[in-house]
Amino acid sequence: MRCEVVAVGTELLLGQIVDTNSSWIGERLALAGIDSHFQTKVGDNLERIVSCIRLALSRGDAVVVCGGLGPTQDDITREALAAVMGVELRRDPEMGARIRHMFESRGRRMTENNLRQAELPEGAAFIPELPGTAPGLICPVAGGKVAYAVPGVPWEMRLMLEGTVLPDLKRRAGAPAAIRSRVIKTWGETESGLAERLAGRIAALDRSGAATLAFQASGVEGLKVRITAKAGDDAAARARVAEEERHVRAILGDVVFGADDETMESVVLDMVRARGKTLAVAETLTGGLLGARMTAVPGAGDVFRGALVSTPDRAPAGVGGLPDAPVASPETASALADAVRGALGADFGLATTGVIGPEPANGRKPGTVFLGVALGGRAEAREARLPGRGRRIREYATIGLLNHFRRALLALPPSPL
Amino acid sequence: MRCEVVAVGTELLLGQIVDTNSSWIGERLALAGIDSHFQTKVGDNLERIVSCIRLALSRGDAVVVCGGLGPTQDDITREALAAVMGVELRRDPEMGARIRHMFESRGRRMTENNLRQAELPEGAAFIPELPGTAPGLICPVAGGKVAYAVPGVPWEMRLMLEGTVLPDLKRRAGAPAAIRSRVIKTWGETESGLAERLAGRIAALDRSGAATLAFQASGVEGLKVRITAKAGDDAAARARVAEEERHVRAILGDVVFGADDETMESVVLDMVRARGKTLAVAETLTGGLLGARMTAVPGAGDVFRGALVSTPDRAPAGVGGLPDAPVASPETASALADAVRGALGADFGLATTGVIGPEPANGRKPGTVFLGVALGGRAEAREARLPGRGRRIREYATIGLLNHFRRALLALPPSPL
Repeated sequence: MRCEVVAVGTELLLGQIVDTNSSWIGERLALAGIDSHFQTKVGDNLERIVSCIRLALSRGDAVVVCGGLGPTQDDITREALAAVMGVELRRDPEMGARIRHMFESRGRRMTENNLRQAELPEGAAFIPELPGTAPGLICPVAGGKVAYAVPGVPWEMRLMLEGTVLPDLKRRAGAPAAIRSRVIKTWGETESGLAERLAGRIAALDRSGAATLAFQASGVEGLKVRITAKAGDDAAARARVAEEERHVRAILGDVVFGADDETMESVVLDMVRARGKTLAVAETLTGGLLGARMTAVPGAGDVFRGALVSTPDRAPAGVGGLPDAPVASPETASALADAVRGALGADFGLATTGVIGPEPANGRKPGTVFLGVALGGRAEAREARLPGRGRRIREYATIGLLNHFRRALLALPPSPL
Repeated sequence: MRCEVVAVGTELLLGQIVDTNSSWIGERLALAGIDSHFQTKVGDNLERIVSCIRLALSRGDAVVVCGGLGPTQDDITREALAAVMGVELRRDPEMGARIRHMFESRGRRMTENNLRQAELPEGAAFIPELPGTAPGLICPVAGGKVAYAVPGVPWEMRLMLEGTVLPDLKRRAGAPAAIRSRVIKTWGETESGLAERLAGRIAALDRSGAATLAFQASGVEGLKVRITAKAGDDAAARARVAEEERHVRAILGDVVFGADDETMESVVLDMVRARGKTLAVAETLTGGLLGARMTAVPGAGDVFRGALVSTPDRAPAGVGGLPDAPVASPETASALADAVRGALGADFGLATTGVIGPEPANGRKPGTVFLGVALGGRAEAREARLPGRGRRIREYATIGLLNHFRRALLALPPSPL
């Protein structure tokens, strides 16, 4: 089973938007055991979209067309699919009423051009998931092939892929070998370092074929090791993955902080919760990023007591007992971590201070950060130099501090940020 | 002049790396007045790479092949280009010596496979820029066409594009028109609503050809209208863009909040600064997102006094004078906006409360948000129902509140969130 991806939109060709949708779809297709040999970007031009869809269907069995389903005149994926199928577009009154209702229920006026979204090629069907106002399409094509159309808005596209497109493709592919994968997340080791430590496993898997390991750098989400196994049935594939996970965890040890949907912040909150404790943070350097990550974890409210946020040049208001030192100093970071516990009524405290730049401050270079942790009867700060510029410094300080706190809770020695 | 982009690498198809190179190249081609109608990703497979290059050259005048120039066995772009040209590969002794020298000067041992990088198709030339150890190639193809090969490492690719490929393409194209563009950013109107309001301009531009308008949905960054104009020289192109911007702003009015690099938060901070005032925020619903956006703006510290962050189920600690009402209520949102001014010593106060879900709270459905604004002698809260789930609700509440505050500062009536 081969399925290509065609991403539609002149803005993609012009580099105004990076096409992340094709990458995401490609990953999901691979996990479903479906080959994707070509992925194409094309602009909002009917003839060229039609040629891309035809070419994709000539080289494979299916195509996912992403984008061009909106209400405006340059949204012409529907027309292109009708041309490929050799049929006319028709307007579906039921879908039209549904779209109108969506606008009205949000107190908005629906402009008439939105009804273009209720059109579909004769013989096509709407994808049941409808998270926005742009319905997706399933279009049967001559030769038992199929074209899917999904919106370019990532979360709408993902819902339709997971809900309809991938299951439909798997069904059409028959019963392929079951494929399972699991992502092991690490922080504190380089990609080449991980590769070196796992070289023996990779060589063993090359011989046995039981599973594969792949590395993926994910910026502030950490470095991921993806374990993938194929087997005759799902239980066997799962067992192979679980077996390999034991090897990987044994080799990598405490640089592993989680797996799959776990994030550094969810792991840290779980650890605080398991100890029956609570946590509060004070942010000057990170200006709310730490709080935003913690509060985004469902159920964070039972252990996360809040954040006091200021800018890198001043300590948060209402925090007493700070030393007579610059904000960006280990003394202030440590005192803030301690004081925010009292201010917000928490057991543990974290704090960030540092120099964002572009100019140095108090003789300290941009990227100099101080990460405070108050745990039990003591508070201390760690100093580090982070590479990059503004946003990167803030994000690395955020996850670096969480990993440092995680290791402190586990009584592990500090690792590189 | 038409130039396609072919990005080579199985990791691109599998979604392990997002192909940002094509986007960057596409933007540069557009600014050079060179059309790029198709961009393709293909894996490390000789036959398929050859087919992509042939197809690109059949549809256009030139192709940039990006990636597959490294030393390992799966780097086969050189072989593919030789096949397209119908010639053999030859090893260039001078380049071989140069590569060997690069390794030695860094104190590293060169493995023999690196000499594969000194190979080029008969009749091709190396690109003079050599930032890494993978030389780029200029390959003349039958019919006066050309294929360029550049490494997939972004900074190496960029140096070669800027230094050789783009100048060579411009020379081949003769003197192309200059192209300029500008992005107008809006909030509070749907994409279809924008299209309807600008339909007259689009029709007029279709006739005159002076410029083009394109819409781009960017989630929580707002809806963008891109104005693009070609002209004989740069000054004329800029003048056309400026002229069209006047029309667009006159038609769209106050839904326009900024242009190009301006963001909603930078615009709001500029407005507060221009009034000689300061701002503080209290976040229960948005949990730090608002603070993180404000503090990410360079120089925010002179007007942004900080954020008090908690979770949706509790008011931030240390804020007095709150009413006896649920946290997620208009009374609390309004009182928080007022009280955070006193707590953090600011002139203006903003606050977010609401129900994130997935469960209702106090009989209110998930997505119900209360956005408080304290301005001058009064504080009030606006209630809204936002679609979507957790993260989306938080992000839309953040920018929605900022836009609401922007309009309040301008004494404009509220618009849809």
